[in-house]
Amino acid sequence: MRLLTLRTEGGTRAVRQDGDTLTEIGDFTDVGSLLHNPDWAELAAKASGTVHALDGADLAPVVPSPGKIICVGHNYRNHIKEMGRDIPEYPTLFAKYQESLIGPNDDIALPPESSAVDWEAELAIIIGKTGRRITEANAADHIAGYAVLNDISMRDYQFRTIQWLQGKTWEKSTPFGPALVTADEFTAGPLMTAAVDGETMQQTPTGDLVFTPEILVAYISTIITLNPGDVIATGTPGGVGHARDPKRYLQEGQLLVTRIEGLGQLNNRVVAEAITEN
Amino acid sequence: MRLLTLRTEGGTRAVRQDGDTLTEIGDFTDVGSLLHNPDWAELAAKASGTVHALDGADLAPVVPSPGKIICVGHNYRNHIKEMGRDIPEYPTLFAKYQESLIGPNDDIALPPESSAVDWEAELAIIIGKTGRRITEANAADHIAGYAVLNDISMRDYQFRTIQWLQGKTWEKSTPFGPALVTADEFTAGPLMTAAVDGETMQQTPTGDLVFTPEILVAYISTIITLNPGDVIATGTPGGVGHARDPKRYLQEGQLLVTRIEGLGQLNNRVVAEAITEN
Repeated sequence: MRLLTLRTEGGTRAVRQDGDTLTEIGDFTDVGSLLHNPDWAELAAKASGTVHALDGADLAPVVPSPGKIICVGHNYRNHIKEMGRDIPEYPTLFAKYQESLIGPNDDIALPPESSAVDWEAELAIIIGKTGRRITEANAADHIAGYAVLNDISMRDYQFRTIQWLQGKTWEKSTPFGPALVTADEFTAGPLMTAAVDGETMQQTPTGDLVFTPEILVAYISTIITLNPGDVIATGTPGGVGHARDPKRYLQEGQLLVTRIEGLGQLNNRVVAEAITEN
Repeated sequence: MRLLTLRTEGGTRAVRQDGDTLTEIGDFTDVGSLLHNPDWAELAAKASGTVHALDGADLAPVVPSPGKIICVGHNYRNHIKEMGRDIPEYPTLFAKYQESLIGPNDDIALPPESSAVDWEAELAIIIGKTGRRITEANAADHIAGYAVLNDISMRDYQFRTIQWLQGKTWEKSTPFGPALVTADEFTAGPLMTAAVDGETMQQTPTGDLVFTPEILVAYISTIITLNPGDVIATGTPGGVGHARDPKRYLQEGQLLVTRIEGLGQLNNRVVAEAITEN
């Protein structure tokens, strides 16, 4: 099942995709609020609300306001190698705030303050059931499904200090979607790619993860409760612009396409941000 | 004005403290939801709802569910020195999730997984007005007020990888309160202390900050919009357990008291966590 968050004139709505149509699911304003209902899967499957065309649909981030966005670094063997690091014993975790999320076809805001805006294609886990100290054996039961996310990173800010957060959470920079594909229809493994103006930059099977979705759910939930709608961005493979020689960064007007087979793709134009000062 | 979040049988309520009494402010469930109303200060000042006694009041984290908790590292000159670092050019930023917050008199959950639980007394800024790219000159207008926060840190997890998040966001570990003291009644400067079972561990004026509240609001809001109820924990001074010789960590049964003159104090017992596995 494919679940999306659609922007309508009356606000956003959680919808189910069936081929070329999107069907509203009850009164749920987005996929995050839907997931807070323990019967979300049944409600979504049986929904028969207003129908919209997929063609031309204005899509929001699939979960627009996650309670937590937990990002993982150093999780693909080939990216760990290009960054010159050893295979880690523990997952490297950092955060992103919800204000950084944008929809699957929205513009990426290119801020005038950064001149080193880079791509990081990632497989995102979306939590469907609350849990703390979830065992690896039970982790699958807590995963609602998967989506595509690009952890856009302002490298100049990321490396200003030893903590990456300030390079990872710029306003309206992180495309996320297009859909939550339920876990019964997707398993990490298929090819993930990122392309800039048609030039493939990253191309790695999502099965190359050092820490699998089940390991990550178990590890993170040891520390803190995972709740429905929480997002775990599982890390990026090799091919980022910062690790290239010469380095490559996103430029005004470029189109970034991020794709995972079976999940869909994000099509985001890079657009210089209009500045307002407060 | 002192604003608190009170736990009642009917759920939490935003209240105004007048001496020994707490007066409910309209229907606002907590100080965070109150701050989302642009007229929060006037509403709070004029409120005349149900009155409760301060004595014996069960207080929640002053803002129980901030949209963002942004933490600052390396911000007191004496702590930077004890950690052996240079005075930084930029603030070091990292995150904490709301599930880690506890009330000013709640128990700190001591998890069995960590044997290096440390204190970090901090002055917290609470945002009162939305803004992006706020100038230093305008920053004061976006600060609703200040509170006390102890950024409890599981040092073993913090240093498992190069990113600190996993040591900074353990469930029910971060006391925050007791009150939001409005910015017209408090300016960074007064003494902050942390004591374990009566032994003073940290004792530094909050005026020793390298990056002042105004600088932090300007810097962070360059990156991302700051919204009402967002929290900036401004960093800890010298005297943490991890920097002592020998190192000192919190133990079951100890009482941690964190205090800033003019803001109030947090009184938190360290209690071993009852484990449930999912």
